[in-house]
Amino acid sequence: MRVMGVDPGLTRCGLSVIDGSRGRQIVALNVEVVRTAVDVPLPGRLLAISDVVEQWLDTYRPDVMAIERVFSQQNVSTVMGTAQVGGVVALAAAKRGVAVHFHTPSEVKAAVTGNGGAGKAQVTAMVTRILGLQAKPTPADAADALALAICHCWRAPMIARMAAAEAQAGGQRQRVGAKVKAAR
Amino acid sequence: MRVMGVDPGLTRCGLSVIDGSRGRQIVALNVEVVRTAVDVPLPGRLLAISDVVEQWLDTYRPDVMAIERVFSQQNVSTVMGTAQVGGVVALAAAKRGVAVHFHTPSEVKAAVTGNGGAGKAQVTAMVTRILGLQAKPTPADAADALALAICHCWRAPMIARMAAAEAQAGGQRQRVGAKVKAAR
Repeated sequence: MRVMGVDPGLTRCGLSVIDGSRGRQIVALNVEVVRTAVDVPLPGRLLAISDVVEQWLDTYRPDVMAIERVFSQQNVSTVMGTAQVGGVVALAAAKRGVAVHFHTPSEVKAAVTGNGGAGKAQVTAMVTRILGLQAKPTPADAADALALAICHCWRAPMIARMAAAEAQAGGQRQRVGAKVKAAR
Repeated sequence: MRVMGVDPGLTRCGLSVIDGSRGRQIVALNVEVVRTAVDVPLPGRLLAISDVVEQWLDTYRPDVMAIERVFSQQNVSTVMGTAQVGGVVALAAAKRGVAVHFHTPSEVKAAVTGNGGAGKAQVTAMVTRILGLQAKPTPADAADALALAICHCWRAPMIARMAAAEAQAGGQRQRVGAKVKAAR
């Protein structure tokens, strides 16, 4: 499974691509932080980020995209920019039929360190170890994008089981509904 | 000047196009509310909205797009969806080189009713009167999208003057900077 991880942000947007399969070493194919200048109007910043994300999608053709789910506990204007980037990135995936999953920061930290409240240094250290990298990925946005992709890779079997269970439950609900209809 | 107004939202996204020029009657060319279902995953909803917005941009070729600026006083998850839609819509304009301006809800209300705290009914009534419509535009998102476009149309001369003044001030700063450099 090839996963593209995206840590959305207007000033710095972390991108990563990894290859992973059950019981195998996860391999990082690329990691990059896209930067846009604060003095460029918002539409231009979104376009610059969208262009790079589209290039990556066309180059790496990932099976799935994992995006960090934004919460609003941070600075309001930062959160708005982050949400706008998240929307633009999800759109680029949707246009190519690439599935998109969102993971919260604590889900990502818990996946790679075992602790949902882990600090940035700990996340970076574990990402470096899991991927067998020679050097720590920097800045933190690069490590976060890799951690997101790893998180999705490891949670994917559980997500698939939950989706299957839900589909089955939906099918049962439909069958029960049909019986009720037939009994009328 | 042709203005496309967008009241961004995931469940209901209001779109409008108007033609306006100084001292002339403003004419509404179209207004529509794009709806997406709550049970569709986010990327699919963003794609559906983006597709309609791109169609409108290609059909009406507006000179400028006016989008409602999101604030976070509302429900957090609603705000995130609204910001994501706003990002996707601004991107569609940026891809076509269409200028984008954001206006706050109170700027829009003040422009069309003279009161930044006006209610929805008052905004709808004024939009109906300004555009000389036979019937009130419904739902409220349609009226809001029209009010946004009207607001931009009326504020555009002031925005242009401010931009010109800023450019001039920037030029002066640069000349002063050059003199300071030359004097060293």
